[in-house]
Amino acid sequence: EPIQIIGVQGLPLIKKGDDVAALICDRVPLGEGDIICIASTIYSKAKGYTRPLSEITPSERAIRLGALNGEDPRFVQAVLDASTDIIMEHPFILSELSFGHIGVRAGVDQSNIEDGMVIFLPPDPMKSADEVRGRIREITGKNTGIIITDTCGRSFRRGQTGNAIGWSGMQAIRDFRGDTDLFGHVLKITEEAVVDEIAGFSNFVMGESNNGVPAVVFRGCPKWTGHDNLYFSGEEDITRRVLKKEWS
Amino acid sequence: EPIQIIGVQGLPLIKKGDDVAALICDRVPLGEGDIICIASTIYSKAKGYTRPLSEITPSERAIRLGALNGEDPRFVQAVLDASTDIIMEHPFILSELSFGHIGVRAGVDQSNIEDGMVIFLPPDPMKSADEVRGRIREITGKNTGIIITDTCGRSFRRGQTGNAIGWSGMQAIRDFRGDTDLFGHVLKITEEAVVDEIAGFSNFVMGESNNGVPAVVFRGCPKWTGHDNLYFSGEEDITRRVLKKEWS
Ligand SMILES: Nc1nc2c(ncn2[C@@H]2O[C@H](COP(=O)(O)OP(=O)(O)O)[C@@H](O)[C@H]2O)c(=O)[nH]1
Ligand SMILES: Nc1nc2c(ncn2[C@@H]2O[C@H](COP(=O)(O)OP(=O)(O)O)[C@@H](O)[C@H]2O)c(=O)[nH]1
Ligand SMILES: [Mn+2]
Ligand SMILES: [Mn+2]
Ligand SMILES: [Mn+2]
Ligand SMILES: [Mn+2]
Repeated sequence: EPIQIIGVQGLPLIKKGDDVAALICDRVPLGEGDIICIASTIYSKAKGYTRPLSEITPSERAIRLGALNGEDPRFVQAVLDASTDIIMEHPFILSELSFGHIGVRAGVDQSNIEDGMVIFLPPDPMKSADEVRGRIREITGKNTGIIITDTCGRSFRRGQTGNAIGWSGMQAIRDFRGDTDLFGHVLKITEEAVVDEIAGFSNFVMGESNNGVPAVVFRGCPKWTGHDNLYFSGEEDITRRVLKKEWS
Repeated sequence: EPIQIIGVQGLPLIKKGDDVAALICDRVPLGEGDIICIASTIYSKAKGYTRPLSEITPSERAIRLGALNGEDPRFVQAVLDASTDIIMEHPFILSELSFGHIGVRAGVDQSNIEDGMVIFLPPDPMKSADEVRGRIREITGKNTGIIITDTCGRSFRRGQTGNAIGWSGMQAIRDFRGDTDLFGHVLKITEEAVVDEIAGFSNFVMGESNNGVPAVVFRGCPKWTGHDNLYFSGEEDITRRVLKKEWS
């Protein structure tokens, strides 16, 4: 049976107070086991995780980095505010967020929102995904999986891809520990970041500009088991350690 | 119209000399515009991009790195042979391949092949993708898009995802330069690595172990335009530069 992937069409411009789950349920009949990817941008707009640049006072550091990087110092201050650890300062800020994600400019976004406003990533995207999943269940009676996505850059390759920043009703990583390959060998590659693979394809359907499709339904996906440790902890993250050392 | 994604079932264990394109066409009726993702592992097996470990003589460097990393020095030699530039040596080799891809252990694989053999990535995956696309056209008369995939790690996040190493009949990156968002702002995020987003989802369908599904058909994907510069060049790759400096 083919997997079916449906971009949710016709959602309005999302504003603070909107019930994103209800708006989605209104536009697409959901089925038991569907996985829905939702762009963090619309979730953040609905929750008011936004600020006007005019209300941000840049610190000395933001003024300095704004000049260094050719960016608005108030925007840079927003990035600093959203960051728990600055890994790199130039040519752009790369930082860790409170929930473990590492993002360029802390994922602070100026697209798909009104002039002069910035959008922050939801501060607790796992909780956000749980909330949406619960609301969908309340409205439709269906058990679904939810992934909150953001568009992110990566090392070694140009361009950006969709990634998962929060998820609910599934494990982030499919675990092949103990599995054997077609020749009976125990596998060395044992962890597949399935939520990022699904988020990436949802981003292909969403696009980055004015497509107006901020949610994508995946129907008929295989189930999987694994674990939720998507973000590195402590000293495991080689790239982070080396970049930070370069910038200290 | 939903996008449909179909894992190609029932392909045999691929061996040298097999006509991968024909085997796929035999098992799934392809449509005009279909995109087919093909695991590099089966392409390499069919072309004989494999070697027995017993025929590899490790160099001093391979012996040293084998001891340092707890790996078979003959396997390490295979990795060194496949690499044009070593970026990092420990805890694993990270290197650049001739076609621009940067991979852990140069993408050299020991899974889904007989005991004592290693599989190399195809040396020119773009040409490989062109070849498969041409063969499919020859057999079916259909114009399709082809992506050759491999499972790769990444910075900052645990787990591995499917990535594109070669493609044909499409551009690697969807380019939003000049596009505006829903509020008329010119976009800052302008390059989306669509081939990696599609490859990632194909990898979710394929899995890493004994699923036996090394090819995945995507039907009904939106079309896009952009460019083919997926791999960084020169000094653009910050992570690479910093990792290499750490290891020099
Ligand atoms: N209908 C609708 N689509 C939106 C809205 N905001 C963003 N989008 C669409 O959602 C998709 C992803 O938007 P993007 O700004 O890239 O979100 P991000 O990846 O979470 O930063 C694009 O297709 C946008 O056009 C909105 O308020 N309403
Ligand atoms: N039918 C078939 N499936 C294969 C063969 N080799 C690998 N696979 C399957 O192809 C998928 C990807 O294999 P993998 O070893 O991860 O390939 P890689 O990602 O290119 O390194 C898995 O589902 C494997 O079971 C083969 O010779 N025949
Ligand atoms: Mn964003
Ligand atoms: Mn986006
Ligand atoms: Mn591989
Ligand atoms: Mn694989």
